[in-house]
Amino acid sequence: MKEQNIKIDLATTKKQKPAADQLVFGKQFTDHMFVADYTEGKGWHDKRIVPYEPITLDPSAMIFHYGQTVFEGLKAYMGQDGSIRLFRPEKNMERLNKSSNRLSMPKVDEALALEALKKLITIDKDWIPNAEGTSLYIRPFMISTESNLSVSPSKKYRFMIILSPVGAYYKEGINPVKILVENEYIRAVAGGTGTAKTAGNYAASLKAQEEADQKGFSQVLWLDGVEKKFVEEVGSMNIFFKINGEIVTPALNGSILEGVTRNSIIQVLKHWGMRVKERKISMKEVQEAHHNGQLEEAFGTGTAAVISPIGELNWEGEEMVVNEGKTGEISKKLYETLTGIQLGKLEDPFDWVVELPKESSVK
Amino acid sequence: MKEQNIKIDLATTKKQKPAADQLVFGKQFTDHMFVADYTEGKGWHDKRIVPYEPITLDPSAMIFHYGQTVFEGLKAYMGQDGSIRLFRPEKNMERLNKSSNRLSMPKVDEALALEALKKLITIDKDWIPNAEGTSLYIRPFMISTESNLSVSPSKKYRFMIILSPVGAYYKEGINPVKILVENEYIRAVAGGTGTAKTAGNYAASLKAQEEADQKGFSQVLWLDGVEKKFVEEVGSMNIFFKINGEIVTPALNGSILEGVTRNSIIQVLKHWGMRVKERKISMKEVQEAHHNGQLEEAFGTGTAAVISPIGELNWEGEEMVVNEGKTGEISKKLYETLTGIQLGKLEDPFDWVVELPKESSVK
Repeated sequence: MKEQNIKIDLATTKKQKPAADQLVFGKQFTDHMFVADYTEGKGWHDKRIVPYEPITLDPSAMIFHYGQTVFEGLKAYMGQDGSIRLFRPEKNMERLNKSSNRLSMPKVDEALALEALKKLITIDKDWIPNAEGTSLYIRPFMISTESNLSVSPSKKYRFMIILSPVGAYYKEGINPVKILVENEYIRAVAGGTGTAKTAGNYAASLKAQEEADQKGFSQVLWLDGVEKKFVEEVGSMNIFFKINGEIVTPALNGSILEGVTRNSIIQVLKHWGMRVKERKISMKEVQEAHHNGQLEEAFGTGTAAVISPIGELNWEGEEMVVNEGKTGEISKKLYETLTGIQLGKLEDPFDWVVELPKESSVK
Repeated sequence: MKEQNIKIDLATTKKQKPAADQLVFGKQFTDHMFVADYTEGKGWHDKRIVPYEPITLDPSAMIFHYGQTVFEGLKAYMGQDGSIRLFRPEKNMERLNKSSNRLSMPKVDEALALEALKKLITIDKDWIPNAEGTSLYIRPFMISTESNLSVSPSKKYRFMIILSPVGAYYKEGINPVKILVENEYIRAVAGGTGTAKTAGNYAASLKAQEEADQKGFSQVLWLDGVEKKFVEEVGSMNIFFKINGEIVTPALNGSILEGVTRNSIIQVLKHWGMRVKERKISMKEVQEAHHNGQLEEAFGTGTAAVISPIGELNWEGEEMVVNEGKTGEISKKLYETLTGIQLGKLEDPFDWVVELPKESSVK
C-alpha cells in the first residue's frame, strides 16, 4: 500500500474536545480514524482516513469467536515548542507484525502504516492535549472479519488506527504501588502467545487483576507458568529490579512481551554506564536481596506510565517494602529522562524521537 | 430474565435455504438470532429474538482489544420421526457460565438461555436439515461491548445465539486421521484459560494447526505446557486411547477443556462395563504401548465429529500407525451409539436427549 493511495474523507462536523482536566484514558476519541481492509489473494485495500464511526460485522465474524486480533499502543506528544513528537513508532509497527505472525494474521507494510499514522495525527492534531503529562494515545489494531465459524485463520482482516487524548498518568507526582505476586493464575508460557500483543493475553489476566484489586493491590506480578518461580512481568508492564547496585530485568524468554519502554530503559541505563543484566530472576532471589537489604529499587515500565515504581511486593503473605515505599533515585531519573526526550525537553542521543513536520497540512 | 420477557420480532423476508449437498460448516445462518444485552448495575436486559443481522460496535469496543468472549457449540437434530432433539444442552449452558467466570464476565440464567434457544430453534425449525448426518449447529456466545481501552473487565456485554445448518462431518463414512504431536506450541497451562471455551485459546492454536497442515497432518496433539510430556487434547477435541483393553483419557487437570462428548463417552463406556481411566498419560507411555502392540485404538471426541478415529500419530518423526490406520471397533460402536441416541434411533438410558414439543408454535 502506498501513501498516496490513502483516501481521505474529512468529518463535516467536529466533536467537542474534552477539557484538560476531564481526560479519561481510552474513552474519548478524535474525529477521524485510519482503516484498511485485507482480503486473501487481494492483499490490503481500501486504505482510508474517515470520520470516526462504528464497525459493522456479522455475528459470525471470526474475531467474536476465535480471537485473532493484535494491537499496539504508543503516544504522540505536543511539546512546549509546538512540535508533535512520536517515540520510536517504528518499533511498535515492527512488533505489530511479530504479533500478527504468531496469530497467523497478515503483515502490514510498516512504513505505510507509519505514514498513515502521521497523516491521521496531522489531521487530528488539535486533539493533542498540551498540559503537563498529557498526550494523544494511539491504538493501531487488526481484527479478523471473515464470517465463518470454522476454526481456521480468517481470510479477511481490518487494520485500524484510532486516537484518544489522555490525561497525566501521575496526577500528584510519580507514585509507588503495592504489587501482589500471583501464585495461582498464569499469564503465558513459552510456546503460547505471551510475546504477542494480542487480546487473549489480556482477557486471561483480568481474573487475577480483579482478585488483587479486592485485596488492595494495584497490580499482580506474574510468575513463569512452568515452575512458578521466576519473575515475568508486572500487570501489563515489564519489570526491573535494582539489586546491590546492578539493574536486573527478566530476559526475553518466549513468554514475556518485548516492551519498547523496556528496550529504551536498558539503553539509557547502559548509556549512563550502569550495569544492566537481562536474565532469569527468581522470586526467591528477590526475597533474599530484600532480606539482605540489597533490593534497592523495583519498577514497572510501559507506554502508559513510562515508569511505575513498586513500593511493596507481597509474596505468599510476606510484605516486602522496597526503598521505604518511596520512589527510588534511578526510577525518578529514568522517568525524567524518558519523558524529557519524548517531549523534546532533553537531548535525544538515541535518535528515538520522530518529529512531525510543523507546517504539515492536508488537502 | 424470564421467558415471557423475550421480545420476538419475526423476519418479514426469509432467506433461501441451502440444498442438503451445499451445506458448508458455519457459513450459512438462519433467519433469526437471540440477543440479550448486559449493563453493569442493571443486569441482562432487552432479551429479543430478531432477524439475523450485523452487529454494530465502536472501534474501541473491548472485545476488539482485550478479548473477553466465551462461546458454546451444540447441535439440534431432526429425527426421522419428525422430532427435534438437543443433546445435553444444559451442560453447554453450565460450561458457558464456568468459562464466563474465568474471563471475569457475567453469568447468564442457564434455564432462560435454554428456553431462548428452544424458542429460537422452534422459529427457525424449517432450517434443520434432515439428511443423514446433517444437523443445525447452535452457537451461543458472549462478547464484551463497552467502549473503553482501559485493561479491565467490561461493564457491558452482549449474549447471542446464532444457528447454522451443517452437513455431514463424514461424507464417505467415518475416516481415521493423521495427527502430529506438537512439540513447539502450547495450547494452555494450569492457571491459564485452557478450561474455558474462549477465543484466545483458539487464536493461539492456529499457528500450530497451519504448520501441521503444511506437513500433511489433519490436527495436532497438544502436550502439557510444563513438561511437554503429557497428552492434553487433539486439535479442539478431547482424546482417548485404548491400551491393552483399557480406555484411558487425560484427567481434567486445569488446562483441558471439559468436553460434553468426553463426559458422555466415559459414561457410555462404563455403562458397557468397560474399564475407563481418567489420568495423566505421557507420550512415552503411548509410544511404549505402540511398540508392545498394546495401543489398540485412539480417537478424538467433540461436538462436530462426535468421534474422530486416529489412524496415525507422529511424534518427533516416529510414525505410529494405530489399528492399521483403520477405524477401531470401540470408536465405531461409540459413534453409532452417540449418534443413534442423538437422532432418537436408539434408547437413551442416560436421559440425555431433550426433545422439543412437536406442535410448538410461535405467535
